[in-house]
Amino acid sequence: MVSPQGDSNSYGALPDVNWSPAEKRIARRAFALALRRELEMVVRETKRRAEKNREPADLWDLELYLTKRRQQIDREFDYRSSVSILVFGNLIRQGKLREEELRSLSDDKLDSIRRYADFQFSLSSKQET
Amino acid sequence: MVSPQGDSNSYGALPDVNWSPAEKRIARRAFALALRRELEMVVRETKRRAEKNREPADLWDLELYLTKRRQQIDREFDYRSSVSILVFGNLIRQGKLREEELRSLSDDKLDSIRRYADFQFSLSSKQET
Repeated sequence: MVSPQGDSNSYGALPDVNWSPAEKRIARRAFALALRRELEMVVRETKRRAEKNREPADLWDLELYLTKRRQQIDREFDYRSSVSILVFGNLIRQGKLREEELRSLSDDKLDSIRRYADFQFSLSSKQET
Repeated sequence: MVSPQGDSNSYGALPDVNWSPAEKRIARRAFALALRRELEMVVRETKRRAEKNREPADLWDLELYLTKRRQQIDREFDYRSSVSILVFGNLIRQGKLREEELRSLSDDKLDSIRRYADFQFSLSSKQET
């Protein structure tokens, strides 16, 4: 499923998926929605941590928290349409996007996204056991 | 004035300065006072920035601000008595410590601290012109 050539992102690529202009619009909107939710969550958590700052160590914990979130967001939110199936599958698995926010995509894309989400979910279940 | 052998801190060392136990106590107290002021300032600025967070870029600006402050504090607050003259001279030059907070040190130490503060001040004046 994942392209064999090495890729610097964390998803690899799916070179044969075509997105119509209408689907690209839906994808862009869903992507922007999930990214906005993610950033709002980081903003809230940053305020909460800054507010409860008591010890110097709290400052550097906040720094580390922000560094990790920036790296995770850079990794997870890859806007290229060649990896959108994987990005959306991953966001759905994590509860950061709902399937109905992607309705109007073609059935085969929704199916691939769902299957990738299930695949990711089965991997994370294995890690937990 | 600065020790010729290379040193990994930003001050070098002054190997021939002896600190009496009483002077070490004064130095520790002044050091802790300046460090607490510095950290309180970073805590305040962090709260202010977290509070006014509007854009995602503000989050990563805050991260960069914290990284820089951590590195600067690690560099400036060197607790070894072999470099205390330089540390105190530097803190006085920056207005982070007042000379009277070091009174009761021996006159020669106060004089060295003052001269190092003046030396630093003349350097920064040159950079500004």
